[in-house]
Amino acid sequence: MSNPEIEAQLAPLRERVQEQGNLVRELKAKGAAELDVKKAVAELKVRKKVLEEKELALTPSVISFDRAKMEDLLKRRFFYDQSFAIYGGITGQYDFGPMGCSLKSNILALWRQFFSLEEQMLEVDCSILTPEPVLKASGHVERFADLMVKDVKTGECFRLDHLIKQALEKLSKAKDATATLQADCEDIIIKLDGLNKQELADVLAKYNIKSPLTGNDLSEPIEFNLMFATQIGPTGLVKGYLRPETAQGIFVNFKRLLEFNQGRLPFAVAQIGNSFRNEISPRSGLIRVREFTMAEIEHFCDPVLKNHPKFAGVANEKLTLYSACNQMDGKSAQQSTIGDAVSSQLVVNETLGYYMARIQQFLHAIGIKPECLRFRQHMGNEMAHYACDCWDAEILTSYGWVECVACADRSAYDLGQHTAATGVRLVAEKRLPAPKTVEVSEIVSNKQALGKTYKKDAKAITEALAKLSLDDIKQVETQLASGGQYKLTLPDGATHELDAETIGVKHATKTVHVEEFIPSVVEPSFGIGRIMYSLLEHSFQCREGDEQRCYFTLPPVVTPIKCSILPLSNNAEFQPYTQKLSGALTKAELSHKVDDSSGSIGRRYARTDEIAIPYGITVDFDTLKAPHTVTLRDRNTMKQVRIDLEAVVGVVKDLATTRLTWSQVLQQYPAFEQQETTK
Amino acid sequence: MSNPEIEAQLAPLRERVQEQGNLVRELKAKGAAELDVKKAVAELKVRKKVLEEKELALTPSVISFDRAKMEDLLKRRFFYDQSFAIYGGITGQYDFGPMGCSLKSNILALWRQFFSLEEQMLEVDCSILTPEPVLKASGHVERFADLMVKDVKTGECFRLDHLIKQALEKLSKAKDATATLQADCEDIIIKLDGLNKQELADVLAKYNIKSPLTGNDLSEPIEFNLMFATQIGPTGLVKGYLRPETAQGIFVNFKRLLEFNQGRLPFAVAQIGNSFRNEISPRSGLIRVREFTMAEIEHFCDPVLKNHPKFAGVANEKLTLYSACNQMDGKSAQQSTIGDAVSSQLVVNETLGYYMARIQQFLHAIGIKPECLRFRQHMGNEMAHYACDCWDAEILTSYGWVECVACADRSAYDLGQHTAATGVRLVAEKRLPAPKTVEVSEIVSNKQALGKTYKKDAKAITEALAKLSLDDIKQVETQLASGGQYKLTLPDGATHELDAETIGVKHATKTVHVEEFIPSVVEPSFGIGRIMYSLLEHSFQCREGDEQRCYFTLPPVVTPIKCSILPLSNNAEFQPYTQKLSGALTKAELSHKVDDSSGSIGRRYARTDEIAIPYGITVDFDTLKAPHTVTLRDRNTMKQVRIDLEAVVGVVKDLATTRLTWSQVLQQYPAFEQQETTK
Repeated sequence: MSNPEIEAQLAPLRERVQEQGNLVRELKAKGAAELDVKKAVAELKVRKKVLEEKELALTPSVISFDRAKMEDLLKRRFFYDQSFAIYGGITGQYDFGPMGCSLKSNILALWRQFFSLEEQMLEVDCSILTPEPVLKASGHVERFADLMVKDVKTGECFRLDHLIKQALEKLSKAKDATATLQADCEDIIIKLDGLNKQELADVLAKYNIKSPLTGNDLSEPIEFNLMFATQIGPTGLVKGYLRPETAQGIFVNFKRLLEFNQGRLPFAVAQIGNSFRNEISPRSGLIRVREFTMAEIEHFCDPVLKNHPKFAGVANEKLTLYSACNQMDGKSAQQSTIGDAVSSQLVVNETLGYYMARIQQFLHAIGIKPECLRFRQHMGNEMAHYACDCWDAEILTSYGWVECVACADRSAYDLGQHTAATGVRLVAEKRLPAPKTVEVSEIVSNKQALGKTYKKDAKAITEALAKLSLDDIKQVETQLASGGQYKLTLPDGATHELDAETIGVKHATKTVHVEEFIPSVVEPSFGIGRIMYSLLEHSFQCREGDEQRCYFTLPPVVTPIKCSILPLSNNAEFQPYTQKLSGALTKAELSHKVDDSSGSIGRRYARTDEIAIPYGITVDFDTLKAPHTVTLRDRNTMKQVRIDLEAVVGVVKDLATTRLTWSQVLQQYPAFEQQETTK
Repeated sequence: MSNPEIEAQLAPLRERVQEQGNLVRELKAKGAAELDVKKAVAELKVRKKVLEEKELALTPSVISFDRAKMEDLLKRRFFYDQSFAIYGGITGQYDFGPMGCSLKSNILALWRQFFSLEEQMLEVDCSILTPEPVLKASGHVERFADLMVKDVKTGECFRLDHLIKQALEKLSKAKDATATLQADCEDIIIKLDGLNKQELADVLAKYNIKSPLTGNDLSEPIEFNLMFATQIGPTGLVKGYLRPETAQGIFVNFKRLLEFNQGRLPFAVAQIGNSFRNEISPRSGLIRVREFTMAEIEHFCDPVLKNHPKFAGVANEKLTLYSACNQMDGKSAQQSTIGDAVSSQLVVNETLGYYMARIQQFLHAIGIKPECLRFRQHMGNEMAHYACDCWDAEILTSYGWVECVACADRSAYDLGQHTAATGVRLVAEKRLPAPKTVEVSEIVSNKQALGKTYKKDAKAITEALAKLSLDDIKQVETQLASGGQYKLTLPDGATHELDAETIGVKHATKTVHVEEFIPSVVEPSFGIGRIMYSLLEHSFQCREGDEQRCYFTLPPVVTPIKCSILPLSNNAEFQPYTQKLSGALTKAELSHKVDDSSGSIGRRYARTDEIAIPYGITVDFDTLKAPHTVTLRDRNTMKQVRIDLEAVVGVVKDLATTRLTWSQVLQQYPAFEQQETTK
């Protein structure tokens, strides 16, 4: 990105972003109307997108990637493919075949080692089916929705923003489009993200937009919640959803987990599992799907102590940071050590910074290209309602920059919400520097009087009284003092007027040694399917001079099969050696594949390359003679060496566990020269 | 079970079973009415149950198990607990805390190594959300249901068979119950399993059975499908279910998997994942839940070649087999090598036998008590609609014998069903011993005439014609030859009369070298939650003389944490040693826990015992002096040795990977004597 020619082309675009960024700042500073800010931000996003697309267009390595060719290979060798294809398939759902499943589970195994084991996290495994009240408290029932419209005759659904954009683009490209119409359309498209439901409905009506498939009328915009709904149990009375994220399972178990950790903070909880989102129109392959595996960490800590004991160990890790500020100024992302980023307050605290560095180390370890990874900070207006700072690890793919890991400081939001919804205090305690005397006020009730007057409601009343806040109690006191009654509302909506006969307020002082607080949460959240897809793109290669021979340069640590065994031909004499090697590889816990099918050795190498097998052992006629040797081939370089039969499994084990590199092997063992032919 | 005193008590019960078993055989032999057979079988089951309960009652070790005490420990140390408890909880759903999650994932890791890796299975990971047509074909939409009734006022649901049994038991125990009433009730309870929906409704009416909770009227019996239903996508038109088993995902991918295996049989496919069943009234803790993890294997093979290449390796494995025959004769289960069982045709083929032996080896490896494991053969009448032989691995727990692994020969059922539903031929090919000339008949159609007459239906007609069976084609020929018309029914129900103008039948001969066949499937299906629960019961112990000190004797291979590090006190001098040990254990990939909390060493040992940590390293004052040593303690025996600081991690690694036993350690290192006190 420091190429001066490219920068010259980008300069005017950068300027346009900066100009708009300044406008947004100005509007915010002078407290402009929310809608005006929203529109300015929408325009800012559009300008940013134009800039980004130009930047990508000027980066030839990404653009020359042949996605169709890779997808063909992934399908042909069943890394993954559409689910239920023989029944016509369902969009947004994929089945992972042997190679995809193994790649995924290797990525997850490394993730566990990298995060759970290394950081001694508490790993949990919570239910997928979630009753409605939990997701009401988390905000998902109300807010986790997209707007859509329906074809009134066929019932076909369209995501509203996509539909309007498509329709207006078509309108403004029509031959008879006036300049005014074109300008209007462009204006709306730019502001689309900032429009609310009614404004979008007005656009639909004004331009008389119909179904693009049938020309039929469309319904009013409908808010479509993206959660899959179902009924738990046979009564039809318990509404539930498939969880849209794994995080809530951790929050509702906070008390148990804190206790497991003997009441101490900080601690981190990890969970790997499936989540579900009923996308209106899923697309982009594995990037936007209805069913996906997440790996989430919730790191609970004292809100005033967000330093991290292991931060010093990662402080020198260099990250590409695309700050909110740079985004508003039209500047590009910048390199910085995470130590500098935290000390300059660009990244809000050490814990967030620590995880960002570890996320990068993990993504590099599985084979993501360092130059295709950046951390983009959320701008104030795009931050989720719960977050106080958020950086997305974005990976560059042929779909552009894709958000693969979100790293957010969720503050006390979630625990606070569940506390409010259940009355169960999801808090931690810390020892005060010195004991403190505090005044406590509580409601005391005359049980007899309550029971006599309210009979079976007395219990509910006592419970409701116990839940009153300090402010409520003050109000009770005021009311009763003035000889009045306090109006109490029960959870079921019933109200009761209570007087000084039945309740009173008691004051006392108490010496406390600890104080309660709601812990803060830092959440790194990994989308495993997206990471896996990006990794496949980054490792996809074709042989120079033979574009039909494609392969994946996946590192051995994640590769599904570590080694192949190829007898040179189906000569029966090779068999005992093949079997012996297979047994030794199993014993060494190395996944492997024997390919004794017919076909030239070159063709079989090509087949193993397609499924990313990094090393291949060939049994040939020299194997039959003492000293018994085999050849060992490296997938990436296609170079071969000749190794003693007894030694080869140890060498493969060392290569697969990165205790040995291929160049070291080349130095230690004689090269074996052979032309690979696939004929 | 060979104790003569016990056998004497069981003998009359065995006789009663045998008597009834003979009656069932007799009824079947003379082709009695289905209902009579069903009733006889129901009575047989009851007699079997009485026998089994008596047998269990005479086995004191199981009865003395204190389930409440274990459950208290599991809850207190958060192995697992009810989901969403702070929201009141949902029955039949559990969250696994750190210890439960880790135990489960260790069991699964060993499972992968034991089955997937060792047998080079293809592991897949398929979608959970499944569109309705797939589960219609598999039979789940129609048959996967239980009968229930609803309280007409509150909507409360009851499983019908449980409800009737409970109501009649209460009736017959009432003071005013006549002998006739008691006999009638007993008779119905015995025959309950054999009654159909109408007969059960009649019982409800005859005894005027009401809701046991409210006394309200009950609805008519309703068939309640146990699958969770939802909508896929926003239109509300695509009905889907959460999968009730993982197997169907494998069957619908059969073609891709066969191709991945280069067209060869046999091969096995494995899948680990969650399945869902909307139980009417879940109970028995982890045994009957709504959301559970399964590990399933589908082994595809030629139906006439069900031998297994590795069978010889397991032929001497001794299994406890409870054959259908022994069950009908009131005999107990019998020991046999799997080799003898297959050669005597008790187990139907080598492949089924091979998996039964491997299942046993796996269950022993994770710590299931050998004397509490048996394989029970399904009797003809309880076999699922698809199975041709089925053996359940049952584990004895305080809930009785629990089915934990089902090992079924599903024959060609599933692939046949999906072929019929989709028209995609899920078949394999095999080379014929010699080429064969076959006559082929096919429909030829006059495209022009078809198009002219049937317009837009022409395509659907052509497709339907291509799907006609050989019998259909013969019928077409007969009809047309007699100058008539062939009546074709389209999938949408429309019919068309086709005459010789538009279609005809062509005959030809063809030389074929291969023949197609539908592979047979052998399916071992593991319920991971049930296995895990059984394992916890089998490994639960209390210290002799101190019944409050409980622990689990889980083997190191599955134990969540392999080692604890306990500094003797919070003396700061211990810290560098604690840290060094922790670093070394991480490097050796050994999960561990540092417990530097206050509390006596004995109390901390007790805490680590509760979460099954098999080995504990204590840093004490001798550690500070050269030669630096620590103590190593064994959970099961509570014995300790003193070991050099540098050597201890290697010893723990060897112990954890079973390369070393604790008695070997006792011989190699000096014992360390110390009274454990929890005071």
